[in-house]
Amino acid sequence: MDTIILMKNQIEKVLEWEDVIGSVEEAYKQFSDEKVILPPVISFEVEKYSGEIDIKSGYDLIDDVVGVKIASGYANNTENYGIPNGLATIILIDVRNGVPFAIMEGGLITDMRTGAAGAVSVKYLANPFSDKVAIIGTGIIARMQLEALSKVIQLKEVFVWGRNDENTKRYIKDMQKKIPLNYTAFTDLEQCVKKADIIITTTSSKEALIQSDWVKPGTHIACIGADMPGKKELDPTLFERATIVVDSIEQCIERGEVQHAINNGIVSEKNLNEIGEVILGNKQGRKSESDVTIFDSTGLSIQDITTAKKVVAVLKDNKDKVLANLI
Amino acid sequence: MDTIILMKNQIEKVLEWEDVIGSVEEAYKQFSDEKVILPPVISFEVEKYSGEIDIKSGYDLIDDVVGVKIASGYANNTENYGIPNGLATIILIDVRNGVPFAIMEGGLITDMRTGAAGAVSVKYLANPFSDKVAIIGTGIIARMQLEALSKVIQLKEVFVWGRNDENTKRYIKDMQKKIPLNYTAFTDLEQCVKKADIIITTTSSKEALIQSDWVKPGTHIACIGADMPGKKELDPTLFERATIVVDSIEQCIERGEVQHAINNGIVSEKNLNEIGEVILGNKQGRKSESDVTIFDSTGLSIQDITTAKKVVAVLKDNKDKVLANLI
Repeated sequence: MDTIILMKNQIEKVLEWEDVIGSVEEAYKQFSDEKVILPPVISFEVEKYSGEIDIKSGYDLIDDVVGVKIASGYANNTENYGIPNGLATIILIDVRNGVPFAIMEGGLITDMRTGAAGAVSVKYLANPFSDKVAIIGTGIIARMQLEALSKVIQLKEVFVWGRNDENTKRYIKDMQKKIPLNYTAFTDLEQCVKKADIIITTTSSKEALIQSDWVKPGTHIACIGADMPGKKELDPTLFERATIVVDSIEQCIERGEVQHAINNGIVSEKNLNEIGEVILGNKQGRKSESDVTIFDSTGLSIQDITTAKKVVAVLKDNKDKVLANLI
Repeated sequence: MDTIILMKNQIEKVLEWEDVIGSVEEAYKQFSDEKVILPPVISFEVEKYSGEIDIKSGYDLIDDVVGVKIASGYANNTENYGIPNGLATIILIDVRNGVPFAIMEGGLITDMRTGAAGAVSVKYLANPFSDKVAIIGTGIIARMQLEALSKVIQLKEVFVWGRNDENTKRYIKDMQKKIPLNYTAFTDLEQCVKKADIIITTTSSKEALIQSDWVKPGTHIACIGADMPGKKELDPTLFERATIVVDSIEQCIERGEVQHAINNGIVSEKNLNEIGEVILGNKQGRKSESDVTIFDSTGLSIQDITTAKKVVAVLKDNKDKVLANLI
């Protein structure tokens, strides 16, 4: 009984965006279809080092796999140690016998499956002719979002806004090399978003950045940044005139972008549909060309599991390169 | 930031009983000193495959390490796949930055730290002249108990009882090679235990096996088998005349051997002391030469963490042999 052990650079070589996007779609369907058991997250808060270690696990009832992700977030890792602020390890266990058949670096998978979340929402909710995207934020998540998005629609214009002009310039310079398009840097957020067909928010803001009347009819907004109580990127009244789709109703009410609209009574739980239901065709997404659609993503551990499984499947023919006999 | 990855055979080569026994002593002290945070265990029950997968974690506040053990128990693994029924993987994370600095096979560590539990209790609770031990059960845990025990006292006689005579013979044959002593096989349990200075119970029985009047004054009993609600190896009235020491008061009341004596009102929580307190000198263990002492072990995840840390420490000078750059 062998265990595949995968380093980040090995995953980088084999994991394609198309595979991650497909895996995230599968994850959403599987979640809404109740084909996964997700226990509570175990969290260790480490205030003295400005960090947190989380253990997220899930039982994938389709493939009989238990996945465990140990993920950490440390505000000062890059500064102190020259390593990413977010680290993760993913372990996949065969439910038939308990064998840990794969252990892999989980940071890249986390970044890519988060990037793919926005792209999947665009695929199912945005107007098909959308070709102008506003990217709010310039960090790793903003980069991943654009990479994934470019795989699902034909983009023409990329409008970029960040708090720090230097970072915005660097984002455009870096992304231009990977995805050659027309990029424009904005210092005025209203100007950045008002012509966009798609808006993707990726900041860690705790105050509304985008006002409702800046958003034109027909826009699709993917809210990726808000994933904790207190985080906020949109004016909550925007939800009043939008079709709202979430990854998990329960989780988004607690810590997604929609938490504020729920808390203020602007919308209620019955206004929320899960993206898995939309993909499965059980619930309607966009209602018309002029409809504003909002997708709220908080991240599900089943996204990690389906993506990690995909990595193993892709490597099936190259197993000898990475095998270790752990047991 | 490198990650040490250790297979079972690598751990086998470097992990000595003395190190495990020392690590378990440290674990008990650390637990009773409240220098560890132990979150609830996450359990996935897999009835269709007669198995279970548990995620046990702990935050070691002394060394700033978070340890996670993913352990599984499958009744038919050996029969179906020729692999151990119990498998485990241990991951150690540096709390300063979230780096997973070691990932290792955890089955051997689990077996050895469980073996060491009985030995530590003998060291602190048995009469020093004890040289006759009765081993109840003949499985892997019974083997580990005797191996560890032989490191802490000078044994002369080993009395062995198991339900299956063939297994008892095999136990004696195998152990005789490792630890040359006088071994006697018993089919009558009363005869097996009544001359023993130390009794170690390792079965998965749900009915009392050992009656109170079979146990002579001065005996030390280490109860290793009972670690779940319903499991039982001793006549509960035995607790009435014994000094009771447990690994964790809360856990043993719920699922240790003492659960039945507690439930029957034979003893109450105030009769229980933790072994960590005894080792630290805060609580008294044995009161006299004729005192019967009972140690109830249910297993603490901090035992895994201190033992796994020891493995890493022992390997410090040989790191190049096992390093992988996971991140």
